[in-house]
Amino acid sequence: MTLAEIYRKYRPEILRLERRMEQQLLAEEQTLKKASVHIMKAGGKRIRPVFVLLSAQFGPSKTAEEVERVAVPLEMIHMASLVHDDVIDNADLRRGKATIKERWDNRTAMYTGDYLFARAIEIASSSSYPDVHEILSMAMREMCVGEIEQLRDQFQLDQNLRTYLRRIKRKTALLISVSCELGALVSGGDERTRRALRRYGYFAGMAFQVTDDILDFVGSEKQLGKPAGSDLIQGNITYPALYAMEHNPEFYDSVKHYMLKPEVYPLPISQAVEAVKQSGAVEASKKLAASYVKKAHEALDELDQNEASASLREIASYIGNRQF
Amino acid sequence: MTLAEIYRKYRPEILRLERRMEQQLLAEEQTLKKASVHIMKAGGKRIRPVFVLLSAQFGPSKTAEEVERVAVPLEMIHMASLVHDDVIDNADLRRGKATIKERWDNRTAMYTGDYLFARAIEIASSSSYPDVHEILSMAMREMCVGEIEQLRDQFQLDQNLRTYLRRIKRKTALLISVSCELGALVSGGDERTRRALRRYGYFAGMAFQVTDDILDFVGSEKQLGKPAGSDLIQGNITYPALYAMEHNPEFYDSVKHYMLKPEVYPLPISQAVEAVKQSGAVEASKKLAASYVKKAHEALDELDQNEASASLREIASYIGNRQF
Repeated sequence: MTLAEIYRKYRPEILRLERRMEQQLLAEEQTLKKASVHIMKAGGKRIRPVFVLLSAQFGPSKTAEEVERVAVPLEMIHMASLVHDDVIDNADLRRGKATIKERWDNRTAMYTGDYLFARAIEIASSSSYPDVHEILSMAMREMCVGEIEQLRDQFQLDQNLRTYLRRIKRKTALLISVSCELGALVSGGDERTRRALRRYGYFAGMAFQVTDDILDFVGSEKQLGKPAGSDLIQGNITYPALYAMEHNPEFYDSVKHYMLKPEVYPLPISQAVEAVKQSGAVEASKKLAASYVKKAHEALDELDQNEASASLREIASYIGNRQF
Repeated sequence: MTLAEIYRKYRPEILRLERRMEQQLLAEEQTLKKASVHIMKAGGKRIRPVFVLLSAQFGPSKTAEEVERVAVPLEMIHMASLVHDDVIDNADLRRGKATIKERWDNRTAMYTGDYLFARAIEIASSSSYPDVHEILSMAMREMCVGEIEQLRDQFQLDQNLRTYLRRIKRKTALLISVSCELGALVSGGDERTRRALRRYGYFAGMAFQVTDDILDFVGSEKQLGKPAGSDLIQGNITYPALYAMEHNPEFYDSVKHYMLKPEVYPLPISQAVEAVKQSGAVEASKKLAASYVKKAHEALDELDQNEASASLREIASYIGNRQF
């Protein structure tokens, strides 16, 4: 199946999840309701719920309620982290729509994020599977650590592939890994199935973030909603930048000066993007993403080969190779 | 026992909880560790853990670990909400020490709060009592709703006793109520015990917040760490202000003008404080606090009369009548 076919197939389930999520946000105070529904309706690929749905195909039991009790919280945790990130990044737009901090204010955004976290945990607490809590709260904790690591590493030169991988693992890969694991768990999957899907999700998540970091250099402003090279200008050194710094001493120097004194040594964004592209960094990063896609596929080899595993295979290939 | 004696008696347990809390925060990324330990060491009365400890005296089983698995998260949730409030209020000092947003920055404060929330849930997930999650996440959710209500009601005139009580219930009373209920729960207390302690905590929490709101008018700047009347100047209309507005038309008018156009009609803070005091608002608020203390005492009548219930009685009297 192609990605479009996979999404078409699961569209009824995704729509039901979205309705369910909206219901869960409706019965509350007006501002919170409007702000949470606003971020929800801003869309997104619902990739975490899709991973839960597909992973839930590998266990013997398939009750839609149990799947919802983890898929909805996972999407809410993701939404909460976006809302808080927009405060931190002072972003006005997200997916082409006004952010909560822009439409309301920073204070509303902060508490809406807190509310979404709390609501997520509350919905998960109705799950019949006790491990759900431990796994979800571990993922939330690690995401916070990842965010703080990113803040700490901003405008810092002493970074390398290892620190980059550790950061994106926490920031992105873990929640995707947990989505797959929880799908397996709530469908009664055994330990082997859980482990394989956890590993698959981890590798797919790593491929996803590496590709995201490539796109930040090769995407157009229209595709990205911000100029190419924005990560670097904001002081976030991702793998493509790391690679270029290592292979182009002149580029290294200009980044170094910018990181140390951005106000004295501005970094011309289009020149920086050009230098990264010229260095072979895009190809090297694509190779890195492809290696994670390969590992994701290998993790799937441990499982029954069925329509769900074929779909997961297709999704990993897609997210490690997508053009926007 | 006097309050000092109660604290002296439970000091070893409180110290053990504090050590445990610090350990739980140690194994992490440096900034998060420093920021979380910073807020922890800033002190506080640890009133929520004390409520857990005392409430845990009413059930048949008393394992220190189970008590810790709820007392530590409750204190962490309280700390997280303080850290986020300091961002919102743009506060530089908390209990005489630099806040996280002052010592580090707003971004660190936001993620430290998120981290403390996540860590709290994670520690609670090791509890053997499945209801713990549902109760804790409900309390977190309601606290967020209370905070948003407070934002919404800021600089709004159409408030009354009912909206005030609803707001402080969510903002303060619920987490104290939950502290008492969870203490009963993890010591194996029966439904009747849980209910009595939940009610006790709710009433004690209401008395606590009403008294806090009185102190904002009658405390000295040194005691409060900010000028008396700060709540009103920040647009938060608490019960003493509501009462004064109702009984002094001139005061009502000046507050009304200030709320509608604070930049055009500034409210002289010391005159406002004086007007509130003159209106009889302090006495009326003390009566309200006393009525909650009475209800808290009545809730205790449902329980065995022992040292723990005597201590809870003493604490309720104290917090509904404290001078700072």
